[in-house]
Amino acid sequence: MISEAERETILFSISKRSEVESFHAMDVLAEATKRRAAGHPVISMAVGQPSHAAPLGALEAARAALAEGRIGYTDALGTARLKSALAWHYKDRHGLEIDPKRIAITTGSSAGFNLAFLSLFDAGDAVAIARPGYPAYRNILGALGLKVLEVPVTAETHFTLTPQSLEAAQKESGITLKGVLLASPANPTGTVTDREGLKALSDYCAAHSIAFISDEIYHGLTFAGEEASALELTDEAIVINSFSKYYCMTGWRIGWMVLPERLVRPIERVAQSLYISPPELSQIAATAALSAGAELDRYKASYAANRDLLMRRLPQIGLSIASPMDGAFYAYLDVTRFTNDSMGFAKRMLAEIDVAATPGLDFDPLEGNRTLRLSYAGSEAEIAEAVERIAAWLK
Amino acid sequence: MISEAERETILFSISKRSEVESFHAMDVLAEATKRRAAGHPVISMAVGQPSHAAPLGALEAARAALAEGRIGYTDALGTARLKSALAWHYKDRHGLEIDPKRIAITTGSSAGFNLAFLSLFDAGDAVAIARPGYPAYRNILGALGLKVLEVPVTAETHFTLTPQSLEAAQKESGITLKGVLLASPANPTGTVTDREGLKALSDYCAAHSIAFISDEIYHGLTFAGEEASALELTDEAIVINSFSKYYCMTGWRIGWMVLPERLVRPIERVAQSLYISPPELSQIAATAALSAGAELDRYKASYAANRDLLMRRLPQIGLSIASPMDGAFYAYLDVTRFTNDSMGFAKRMLAEIDVAATPGLDFDPLEGNRTLRLSYAGSEAEIAEAVERIAAWLK
Repeated sequence: MISEAERETILFSISKRSEVESFHAMDVLAEATKRRAAGHPVISMAVGQPSHAAPLGALEAARAALAEGRIGYTDALGTARLKSALAWHYKDRHGLEIDPKRIAITTGSSAGFNLAFLSLFDAGDAVAIARPGYPAYRNILGALGLKVLEVPVTAETHFTLTPQSLEAAQKESGITLKGVLLASPANPTGTVTDREGLKALSDYCAAHSIAFISDEIYHGLTFAGEEASALELTDEAIVINSFSKYYCMTGWRIGWMVLPERLVRPIERVAQSLYISPPELSQIAATAALSAGAELDRYKASYAANRDLLMRRLPQIGLSIASPMDGAFYAYLDVTRFTNDSMGFAKRMLAEIDVAATPGLDFDPLEGNRTLRLSYAGSEAEIAEAVERIAAWLK
Repeated sequence: MISEAERETILFSISKRSEVESFHAMDVLAEATKRRAAGHPVISMAVGQPSHAAPLGALEAARAALAEGRIGYTDALGTARLKSALAWHYKDRHGLEIDPKRIAITTGSSAGFNLAFLSLFDAGDAVAIARPGYPAYRNILGALGLKVLEVPVTAETHFTLTPQSLEAAQKESGITLKGVLLASPANPTGTVTDREGLKALSDYCAAHSIAFISDEIYHGLTFAGEEASALELTDEAIVINSFSKYYCMTGWRIGWMVLPERLVRPIERVAQSLYISPPELSQIAATAALSAGAELDRYKASYAANRDLLMRRLPQIGLSIASPMDGAFYAYLDVTRFTNDSMGFAKRMLAEIDVAATPGLDFDPLEGNRTLRLSYAGSEAEIAEAVERIAAWLK
């Protein structure tokens, strides 16, 4: 037997790489869930999650599959039906011929990022992301032993990465990039990188043997500017997308990648062991969701109404909008006028008026203490109510 | 513009760590799927997948949730309801009081392994697994930059790991272990490690500051011997389990971990970024599945009938069973009599008689060229038909 005195010293240790920052939005979600369970009238603007259910056709397809019987493993990179439907989608929306063999179905875009990073980069390799940007990029890259080069984006470059900013960041840091990851529309800034901007980045990456990862998870949710896919410009881009946002299927955990052909088999091998297969029911529902454009565009119109409301009301109540709001469904706010501790500010807001928002530190470890992200993917009534609660509270 | 000649040299490179072995069972599944789609009467004994659908209560719960509306993100470590139901399950089946806070819901046991490895080990750390054993262990560990110490298990130790075999393997390799991973019942050997064997391992790990990971995914499917949980012996074990096997919910991708308390938060942080949350519909269905014991025990009886048939017929047709078949739903066969290339053997079997099996190389990179795994989780009619096809073919 081990004595209590000995015990402390001999416990197995916890890894250094699990010391990633917590994803504060998820912590806020957990706190909001707790408050809601206790009867509080919580409105969540913290997590990027549509208030709408999946399209009716998707729900119906899922119901039919449940009635039919076993939900089983599929091929590791997903069902042929969903891949074909996605190929059709690229033809329909972008006029592109994509071989379904280049498509990999993934367990949400989360799996797409993990698979891309694992198959493209070895420990120590460096990948550039925008700051502010989606925190999971930084955290997954870190957990996998990769270097993260956070490249600040500002109004000067419309909050997007450019060859010039990548050059400058490499020069300053002494780091040579192996990968560049760009989201357009971007979370949290709402920035949309136009075709020309994407082309410049893709050419830059090609000229420097850098893998170009294009996060297109907010495609379908562009309210201003030009929504282009990296696939329109090159077959060498690694495109990551998901059914969580435009298709309103967050909790179904289903997404996809479009890959350069030579990357398909490496991704498949890693996916077989790391994920076995994406959830089958979600694949069935997602296939149906691809033909629900009319319904989904109505939802998009409701986000557009929320966006109009926020663009009008937030400045009126003293909350200044820090970046474009051209796409995705976020308002990224500068709260300097009220606080230098946006985390504490978000906590108080949740505790005092039951409105959940995400502190900027998730997106920007350096300057996020004075920013806050509001998701406007909720219902119009909810968002309007939340804004009025915040207005009254700020007074 | 880049000339064609230049092009070859400047493409971005693919990572070394994605050079994991392919999971042959998944490749066989893909080939079987293709043949089935082309109209062939394929019987799959390749993948460890029950032929039964999820329990009726689980399907009904999923249907009700679909009718109710949005399927959304949950907390990163899962819903409070499912955690409570699992705590109740441990009380009911093992007489254990497990604090629901120590439970993490995961996207299949696959996510459990990935989260455990990431939160326990840093690059270069070494983890012991049994050979033969589940290939994804080796592949995930490798992709994460961890050393794999494959410890051969034989009839002498009833095909399980022991403190002695761990000592010997460390001495021989010069490697000092940071983790030990044991499955009981085990895939592919069917070995069940009894309480005493588990206790010896758990004590050995505690005495050497080694993390002890207990893969209990085949719990509920023990046909001979004593099924014990590592939780009965220590609070320091990292227990990984899943709804895929006993609960017949493979394609739902839902599993769980029971963790030492101090590991919960590191796991939560990594899970937030790497998985966001497990699929909600699957969590709802899984909660209901936990009270479907009577139905599931009927399925177990059908595997038992398959097992009896295989234990009787396989030796008659010249296929010798290489290990115990005490638990899980696999027969691990020595096919030396027929071939020295079990991969080719499996391919021919699929091509010629439409029976899919998994070549032993998945489980044993050294000696798997002369072994083959058959899953007997299919229906009784299917398994009987497959055995007769194989019998006729071997003649």
